[in-house]
Amino acid sequence: MNTDDALTAARKVAGLLHGDAAERDRAGRRPVREVRALRESGLLGLAPDDHVTTHAVVRIVAAADASIGHLLGYHYLHLWRIGLFDRPEQARRIWRDTAERNWFWAAATNPQDTIRATPSPDGLVVNGSRAFATGAAVADRLVVNATRDDGGDRLTIVMDARLPGIGHPDDWDNMGQRLSASGSVTFDGVRVPHEQVVGALPAGRDDPRMVRLSLSALAYQSVLTQVLVAIAEGALAEAARYTREHARPWPLGGAESAGRDPYILAGYGELVASVRAAGLLADQAASALRAASDLGPALTAEVRGETGVTISSAKVVATRVVLETTTRIFDFIGARGTAGRFGFDRFWRDARTLTLHDPVVYKAREVGAHFLTGELPPPTAYS
Amino acid sequence: MNTDDALTAARKVAGLLHGDAAERDRAGRRPVREVRALRESGLLGLAPDDHVTTHAVVRIVAAADASIGHLLGYHYLHLWRIGLFDRPEQARRIWRDTAERNWFWAAATNPQDTIRATPSPDGLVVNGSRAFATGAAVADRLVVNATRDDGGDRLTIVMDARLPGIGHPDDWDNMGQRLSASGSVTFDGVRVPHEQVVGALPAGRDDPRMVRLSLSALAYQSVLTQVLVAIAEGALAEAARYTREHARPWPLGGAESAGRDPYILAGYGELVASVRAAGLLADQAASALRAASDLGPALTAEVRGETGVTISSAKVVATRVVLETTTRIFDFIGARGTAGRFGFDRFWRDARTLTLHDPVVYKAREVGAHFLTGELPPPTAYS
Amino acid sequence: MNTDDALTAARKVAGLLHGDAAERDRAGRRPVREVRALRESGLLGLAPDDHVTTHAVVRIVAAADASIGHLLGYHYLHLWRIGLFDRPEQARRIWRDTAERNWFWAAATNPQDTIRATPSPDGLVVNGSRAFATGAAVADRLVVNATRDDGGDRLTIVMDARLPGIGHPDDWDNMGQRLSASGSVTFDGVRVPHEQVVGALPAGRDDPRMVRLSLSALAYQSVLTQVLVAIAEGALAEAARYTREHARPWPLGGAESAGRDPYILAGYGELVASVRAAGLLADQAASALRAASDLGPALTAEVRGETGVTISSAKVVATRVVLETTTRIFDFIGARGTAGRFGFDRFWRDARTLTLHDPVVYKAREVGAHFLTGELPPPTAYS
Amino acid sequence: MNTDDALTAARKVAGLLHGDAAERDRAGRRPVREVRALRESGLLGLAPDDHVTTHAVVRIVAAADASIGHLLGYHYLHLWRIGLFDRPEQARRIWRDTAERNWFWAAATNPQDTIRATPSPDGLVVNGSRAFATGAAVADRLVVNATRDDGGDRLTIVMDARLPGIGHPDDWDNMGQRLSASGSVTFDGVRVPHEQVVGALPAGRDDPRMVRLSLSALAYQSVLTQVLVAIAEGALAEAARYTREHARPWPLGGAESAGRDPYILAGYGELVASVRAAGLLADQAASALRAASDLGPALTAEVRGETGVTISSAKVVATRVVLETTTRIFDFIGARGTAGRFGFDRFWRDARTLTLHDPVVYKAREVGAHFLTGELPPPTAYS
Repeated sequence: MNTDDALTAARKVAGLLHGDAAERDRAGRRPVREVRALRESGLLGLAPDDHVTTHAVVRIVAAADASIGHLLGYHYLHLWRIGLFDRPEQARRIWRDTAERNWFWAAATNPQDTIRATPSPDGLVVNGSRAFATGAAVADRLVVNATRDDGGDRLTIVMDARLPGIGHPDDWDNMGQRLSASGSVTFDGVRVPHEQVVGALPAGRDDPRMVRLSLSALAYQSVLTQVLVAIAEGALAEAARYTREHARPWPLGGAESAGRDPYILAGYGELVASVRAAGLLADQAASALRAASDLGPALTAEVRGETGVTISSAKVVATRVVLETTTRIFDFIGARGTAGRFGFDRFWRDARTLTLHDPVVYKAREVGAHFLTGELPPPTAYS
Repeated sequence: MNTDDALTAARKVAGLLHGDAAERDRAGRRPVREVRALRESGLLGLAPDDHVTTHAVVRIVAAADASIGHLLGYHYLHLWRIGLFDRPEQARRIWRDTAERNWFWAAATNPQDTIRATPSPDGLVVNGSRAFATGAAVADRLVVNATRDDGGDRLTIVMDARLPGIGHPDDWDNMGQRLSASGSVTFDGVRVPHEQVVGALPAGRDDPRMVRLSLSALAYQSVLTQVLVAIAEGALAEAARYTREHARPWPLGGAESAGRDPYILAGYGELVASVRAAGLLADQAASALRAASDLGPALTAEVRGETGVTISSAKVVATRVVLETTTRIFDFIGARGTAGRFGFDRFWRDARTLTLHDPVVYKAREVGAHFLTGELPPPTAYS
Repeated sequence: MNTDDALTAARKVAGLLHGDAAERDRAGRRPVREVRALRESGLLGLAPDDHVTTHAVVRIVAAADASIGHLLGYHYLHLWRIGLFDRPEQARRIWRDTAERNWFWAAATNPQDTIRATPSPDGLVVNGSRAFATGAAVADRLVVNATRDDGGDRLTIVMDARLPGIGHPDDWDNMGQRLSASGSVTFDGVRVPHEQVVGALPAGRDDPRMVRLSLSALAYQSVLTQVLVAIAEGALAEAARYTREHARPWPLGGAESAGRDPYILAGYGELVASVRAAGLLADQAASALRAASDLGPALTAEVRGETGVTISSAKVVATRVVLETTTRIFDFIGARGTAGRFGFDRFWRDARTLTLHDPVVYKAREVGAHFLTGELPPPTAYS
Repeated sequence: MNTDDALTAARKVAGLLHGDAAERDRAGRRPVREVRALRESGLLGLAPDDHVTTHAVVRIVAAADASIGHLLGYHYLHLWRIGLFDRPEQARRIWRDTAERNWFWAAATNPQDTIRATPSPDGLVVNGSRAFATGAAVADRLVVNATRDDGGDRLTIVMDARLPGIGHPDDWDNMGQRLSASGSVTFDGVRVPHEQVVGALPAGRDDPRMVRLSLSALAYQSVLTQVLVAIAEGALAEAARYTREHARPWPLGGAESAGRDPYILAGYGELVASVRAAGLLADQAASALRAASDLGPALTAEVRGETGVTISSAKVVATRVVLETTTRIFDFIGARGTAGRFGFDRFWRDARTLTLHDPVVYKAREVGAHFLTGELPPPTAYS
């Protein structure tokens, strides 16, 4: 599927999701049907290392449904991350299988996880749990980070998401991103053969391979940024539809329609311009990520760091813009637009939830430190 | 009940409402139990023309539950408005009965209403409906504005809220102020005797009595402003509790607790200071309203207009502050605080709903016009 | 002079200063004539411990000329501070002399100062210098903090500002507050008799007298806050005059005059409302200061701390509001209003200079810490 | 000169201008030396229809000195505008002459101008005046719009800027853009031959040639946007230098240097990110302008309109960002940085002056109207 086809497919999925997004948000069910739509779209098989295309696809889908865009964005990153280990054929094979079988991927990976892998005669036995395992409950395949009991190696393992012993407590009930299936996942004696280990993290932070492997932390930030911009875009589009079709002019204002009210017009203009600027910076971030990824093992700490600063800049701007946009659109729809059935609050709820993934002020701090002194953000799970 | 007792009683009601406010918000039921708590508190019997005390009581209750504070604030205004007609004994009697029987009042009054009153041998027959009749479904008594079929007099009528023919379609399901019972009310051949007419609006806008009667539009704005400030106060208090008890410090930030994070500390400080300023202006507005009300028939158009400008100023500030506060508190609670059970989004949803009652930019415009040229806001249903 | 007379006198001085404020700002001369106007107004003799009146006077004068309001506000504080030592008759005498002779007071006091006092047969010999000695170059009397060579006592000394050995290098040339004569003052063998020592700071921070003496740090913050609010008020008033008299409507906007442009009207309204709220909080701060001051030696650390939090809250709000106001007024005057002769930029320059006296974000932090945990700001030169 | 050489030359000019920018701003002299530096740089001869390169050059120069960047940006547009008439050889010749002789161009063109051209035996006699003729006083060549006495044709004429009869009253003394020589120019019997008429505006707005000719209004908006972004960039760079070299840490803050203060770091980060986003949108606007310009006579009203919306979006964002940036940098430099010799206020003064060129809220309104309904901005002198 080339880029144009991918964008067309994304628009089609967005069209499907858009119609009942408010209703589905209220119901808050696991996104089983939604993930099926992703599978049927063919989008799950896109090359996961073409971040420019995947991010564009995520943006389109997330504008219609931020939870599903979020799931799709993470899907690509889980697959791409497999390729950061030095086993290119294994990664290619997994990517190919994914494209052929339309697997949806999720993960149970977290720096502070408590998942252990115990060697057994025929492979590994995995035990433990992971909170906030976005998408795991509806996934076909999982990437799991686990620590070997013996020796302490931190392994990355891929597995069928429906293996015996994998559980999904129904513990996701959140004010936003309600369809992102971000509840916990549990592993109770899950058996996997050794060949499903796709890599191990080097023991030391200073291992030269860590530069590349640590690029994944930045990639998650980049996808989140796209989803934030998408929420703002979706909110504006939906509000504009309402303003045109339903909103009433303020009787004391003198305009013949809400769409001619001077404050509504200028209000839209300010937000549209801001969102557009945020979108350009998010796209610059995606391009920087792709360029860094394309360097392969040649990626230096400097390029990684600069990429991180670009992504953090984009996230800082997107965060401000999406919170402002999702609050201010209500000034353009009026009191009647707060009826529950329209679900206009979901944009703010999704934005406010996602913008808290990690505190954005520390991203601003990274950008500021780099500007002042050239300091690069330290590689962590969030930078 | 003197002012101190009233404030104590308000704090007691707030304490009752606070505990399960998030849960009740999610359930979204009619506030039957909540209104019962108001009845039992004795607060319904406060003198409705002491706006300084009633506004202070509303602020305390609304900080715990904005819907119930809203209901209580309107209750006082409906009663007070009865006293604006030139029938002081009738008003006093209704106020006394209310205090004795702990009646809760709501209204069906709207400039664009379609409620008609048809004379009959033994009184009037009321037909029609009113959307957004806040509190009517749980009220004991109603104030209804109706237009006489013959002659067109615009009457204000009080009646038992459970008379045969009064209906409450279950049509309130909103993103915010979910417990304010703001659905519609219908009148289908409701019979009321003539003596329940408490007044009639003068035919012409220029009738000197209109200055005083039109004060009620300002009073509603003033109560809404108090509720907005209260939402901000409630949000801050609740967030602070969470920050102290649950929030985790950002690992990369270096503070030993969330409550020592420099950004969280300064962030709280900025909001606390802003809310405090907004609260003072809201109180100045309440005092101005009381002073205007106390003038009785001596109220001039100039004093009425200046009062309106003060109230509008307060509403402009309160609107900005409550939207900022209810969004930014999340930066102090972090990702885990977005779990549905905490219900922190209700503050923003309540605020965003209530701030749309009428577009605040037109209030800013009034204030600006007055500052530039001394122009007074025209008496309307909203100014 | 009672309060009403004081306010009238303040308005008169403001009227004098207002006419050529822009011109005098550009010239940037020492405020010799301006201080003469203060002397002739009788305002210098107001009771310096009536902070409510003095702050109100400062606000009126500072709205016309922020530098002169600043000088006047500090004048009162220098006098009042003398009264914090346990020598009431001495303070009363100085206050009385000031009122009779219309002395203008400035100071050379700073925690990090390098002014030494060496005992001599007939008193003390003062040597050293102080940067940013606001008003000293145009003062009649000075309050000087100096450290005794022998023993290290930190003395507070009053003296004639024109004693031999006192010098005023012409080193004040600032982007704002240009008429505040905030250059340095030097002391070169200045001889003063012992009786001009009005007090000595206790040796230890924990001395109970320090609670009261350290109130002065808060008082300066309170006066600065009043000047900030005044700048915003002055800027709005001056802009409104221009909008009414000179501004042209935007041809593509459709309004018949600038004063009917919807964006200009709402823009004024937003600022007017914000400034009003900031002003109320500043007044609450002045009242709190006066109440704390009136407690005399009974002032507790708790009351001092709460007073500080109130003042800091006011400063946080005033800072935000004055920066916003002095930038946004230009949207209401248009391009032609940027001509140098109008001097509209002086409001922003004054505000931006004064808001940097000490970093306001640390005031916000104080307020936040107090809100979260009840922590009181530590007594320092700025809190 | 290719693009790389142009950018290098621009950096060199910026380096020259940067050192004494504050000093020259205070002196406020006509930019004679500065324009000489432009002539010597070779930058005046760049192809004026390559807006991407010329805008990039303007941005670099304007970051060092906003007035000179402004002059250079207008220079390119005056030349480019000549090429919009259907006389390509004449335009090419003028461009070639300009490149060879390093002419600096300014203009006296304004929709409401009062400049008349009277036919005479040997050409035209020009009389009248133009206010705000940016750069005219220091120009080598002028583009003048004049209306023929007979018939009313609106002519565009080029002429030597030092012809007898051309006067430059010394009437530019502004709070910002002080070196932009934006005073008036007068024409008193100035004689020019007919061949210096480069074009005439079509009589009717609906003439198809007007689409292309009216592109120039958008081009000015685009250049102004670049200068605004440049001011923000220059302010940040200069502030960072001060923070690193001079700023002191706040003693109560605990950081060992100003550059480690958490609020300063995050503050820089927020501004740097915002300016970066604004810069990308400004660049997108320049590209859109170039694409529209390259269409030549094939430019449609639709493409022109969309180009205008892109440029207006960029201006809306740049305006917000530059005002915020030039105010907030002071929080990172502290009180001592307000000394007059540093001249940090010039960034805000330049920004505030230039952002008033025409009211930006009407640009926001254009963007909003287009977003809501697809409406294109009407061709005017500002849109």
